[in-house]
Amino acid sequence: MTDGLYGRGTDDTYAQAGFGARVRRGERPAIVVVDLTNGFTDPAYPTGADLSEVVSATATLIGHGRAARVPVVFTTIAYTPAEADGDAITWLHKAPGMRAMREGSRAVEIDGRLPRRAEDILVVKKGASAFFGTNLAAILTGLRRDTVLICGATTSGCVRATVVDAVQHGFSVLVPRQCVGDRAPGPHEAALFDIQAKYGDVIDLAEAAGHLAQGAPIDV
Amino acid sequence: MTDGLYGRGTDDTYAQAGFGARVRRGERPAIVVVDLTNGFTDPAYPTGADLSEVVSATATLIGHGRAARVPVVFTTIAYTPAEADGDAITWLHKAPGMRAMREGSRAVEIDGRLPRRAEDILVVKKGASAFFGTNLAAILTGLRRDTVLICGATTSGCVRATVVDAVQHGFSVLVPRQCVGDRAPGPHEAALFDIQAKYGDVIDLAEAAGHLAQGAPIDV
Amino acid sequence: MTDGLYGRGTDDTYAQAGFGARVRRGERPAIVVVDLTNGFTDPAYPTGADLSEVVSATATLIGHGRAARVPVVFTTIAYTPAEADGDAITWLHKAPGMRAMREGSRAVEIDGRLPRRAEDILVVKKGASAFFGTNLAAILTGLRRDTVLICGATTSGCVRATVVDAVQHGFSVLVPRQCVGDRAPGPHEAALFDIQAKYGDVIDLAEAAGHLAQGAPIDV
Amino acid sequence: MTDGLYGRGTDDTYAQAGFGARVRRGERPAIVVVDLTNGFTDPAYPTGADLSEVVSATATLIGHGRAARVPVVFTTIAYTPAEADGDAITWLHKAPGMRAMREGSRAVEIDGRLPRRAEDILVVKKGASAFFGTNLAAILTGLRRDTVLICGATTSGCVRATVVDAVQHGFSVLVPRQCVGDRAPGPHEAALFDIQAKYGDVIDLAEAAGHLAQGAPIDV
Repeated sequence: MTDGLYGRGTDDTYAQAGFGARVRRGERPAIVVVDLTNGFTDPAYPTGADLSEVVSATATLIGHGRAARVPVVFTTIAYTPAEADGDAITWLHKAPGMRAMREGSRAVEIDGRLPRRAEDILVVKKGASAFFGTNLAAILTGLRRDTVLICGATTSGCVRATVVDAVQHGFSVLVPRQCVGDRAPGPHEAALFDIQAKYGDVIDLAEAAGHLAQGAPIDV
Repeated sequence: MTDGLYGRGTDDTYAQAGFGARVRRGERPAIVVVDLTNGFTDPAYPTGADLSEVVSATATLIGHGRAARVPVVFTTIAYTPAEADGDAITWLHKAPGMRAMREGSRAVEIDGRLPRRAEDILVVKKGASAFFGTNLAAILTGLRRDTVLICGATTSGCVRATVVDAVQHGFSVLVPRQCVGDRAPGPHEAALFDIQAKYGDVIDLAEAAGHLAQGAPIDV
Repeated sequence: MTDGLYGRGTDDTYAQAGFGARVRRGERPAIVVVDLTNGFTDPAYPTGADLSEVVSATATLIGHGRAARVPVVFTTIAYTPAEADGDAITWLHKAPGMRAMREGSRAVEIDGRLPRRAEDILVVKKGASAFFGTNLAAILTGLRRDTVLICGATTSGCVRATVVDAVQHGFSVLVPRQCVGDRAPGPHEAALFDIQAKYGDVIDLAEAAGHLAQGAPIDV
Repeated sequence: MTDGLYGRGTDDTYAQAGFGARVRRGERPAIVVVDLTNGFTDPAYPTGADLSEVVSATATLIGHGRAARVPVVFTTIAYTPAEADGDAITWLHKAPGMRAMREGSRAVEIDGRLPRRAEDILVVKKGASAFFGTNLAAILTGLRRDTVLICGATTSGCVRATVVDAVQHGFSVLVPRQCVGDRAPGPHEAALFDIQAKYGDVIDLAEAAGHLAQGAPIDV
């Protein structure tokens, strides 16, 4: 096996500390698609990048999920004018670029290349994690899910924060490598390293598709 | 100014996206010391590393906090036998090394080199973030705090998760660079980069001390 | 002093147990208006009742808040079609009448008799408490608030759940008696008794107005 | 059918509003025992009452749970000296009697008449709801539970707050009537009315036992 991102020394340190085990693969998966909105997937936006391959891989994963009747939840960052223009959201003081994610604008709409359906729940979020300040955990519990496959953008930002919260909430976490993307390769790779070490299994899209095929249908 | 960790291209991308602004410096700070327990600061433990310099810098910061009557909150990861030996905590499937953090053991005690006082609140946590599944946010609100200075270990793990949650909860976040540490330099640097870009201000210990000197006393 | 709702015996029991003390009156109040939407204030809806007096008293309180530059947050229960028609929200299995609270309908709009302004934040909630699954606590912290005056409907349902969560989150709670209402008098009175005993101070509208006059302006 | 606590008019109003439906009975139950500690069950404490019958009924329910290998979670309110003697917990300003619930004291120990086992998780809480500021929801998710049977004290206080949070978190809620108790009958009855109307099914102990017999074992 080749050394990880930071070399053999770090790998040994982490192995000794007891990280990187395989997560329990549950029986009732859900797909959570984090912030694949135009504001993130269209490079014409200052906050965007060309994430065409991520969108395509996520569409493929969703296709496998549909066949297995696995629920799909989308998230979007969207602020009302009162939020975007005011002082109430502390995060926007540090990340003012996010103020452009305005409710009702094209920037906050789910990328049209994704096969979204009317029955897919859309979670509107105000921070990095899709769980924070939302009812996502309650929705997954209401749908009787035990495992989440997390896709989306950005790997080092909202995806990573969502992954950490997902395992903290008690869900097993799988991250299909091809289904997450970032603006820059450095933070992307660093985030995948940390996720695989401590929070969820970073797996191949084919493995994720295989897992979905075993998932219980939504209404069981 | 020199380029950041990932070079000029990433810096430009982040500047364009609108990240890295200066946080509001509030008037009512608190110090949160994340997991500076023996299990993390004593290299004799498999989960530990030599964090003597981090402990020392944090002790210095706390000293400045005492002079300004700023509240200090410590956190520790500690599991009951039922938690450590059972299946209920999903994180422990991925990070089984954490099962060694047993309630009542020396591993979960705050490092004795830190100037802890009886009136400092100790938050017992079960996950990465000091806010998740704890009443830390409620405590900070009850103490009428608006800003948190976050110290501790590990930078890429529990510190980072705590930073992300702190800003999501509405607090301004300051991270004194000398007061956080990790097992390995790679994840440490990557985490500081992401924190400075998106969640809080990574500052020098001297600047943090200066900020504390302006803080409101705990009982105002 | 006259006996409370349940008579002298219960009053004595609660006094002995150490309930009913006066809350800390903070310096930075916010007004939270819970679910004064047409679906609750217009008796033409099956879920509604004639809450004209509650709406009028709340409008008066908001007027005092404007004069003191106190922030006002409104909440509404609103479900997307995927939520209203699906299984994901467990509460809707017990309270199916709430499925009528559909995003975009008149039922979920704030009652037009209330003096809502563009800068007032609107929190969309999916459960009983205005804090659950929302960023309300983060917003109040971001606005540097320490005390909440809670108005709205229904006293025994969403108001009470919001009150309990507010004090748990660390905020002092004041409930102006004239500003909360319910479909039926029994649950209304029982809720006010429990709130006054355990969670917040049930006060007169005039006292609430006086408190607001002392509040810090929003931008301090 | 006889009229409810508040008479026919209230019953009709609630039926019209669409409350009181039967909850989904899940397949994977857990028992949550709220605050049956000596401080609440021993009338020698100012905060206590004689809850012998509630303790006995809960012990019976737990017995049925053991036979079906259903997990049991206990909760206790317990404050460290820093919490009990300080200002950080806002609830303690309103309910100062709760300051007597000190970590390490007999008051916060689970009533010895209950058949607690080493593998039962104990959740330490600081507020009314067993979910607030704790990892209870994460534990239930980690144990793959979809339904909670909630027992304990007091009905109008911590039980009710826990019930409201349980359904908000996505769990189906069952409250065995004989397994919950309060200091005074008025608030007890009012709470059961509200719970049955809006949050969970108030059922007989025998029905609860029957439900447990169908539950999936903990390790499935």
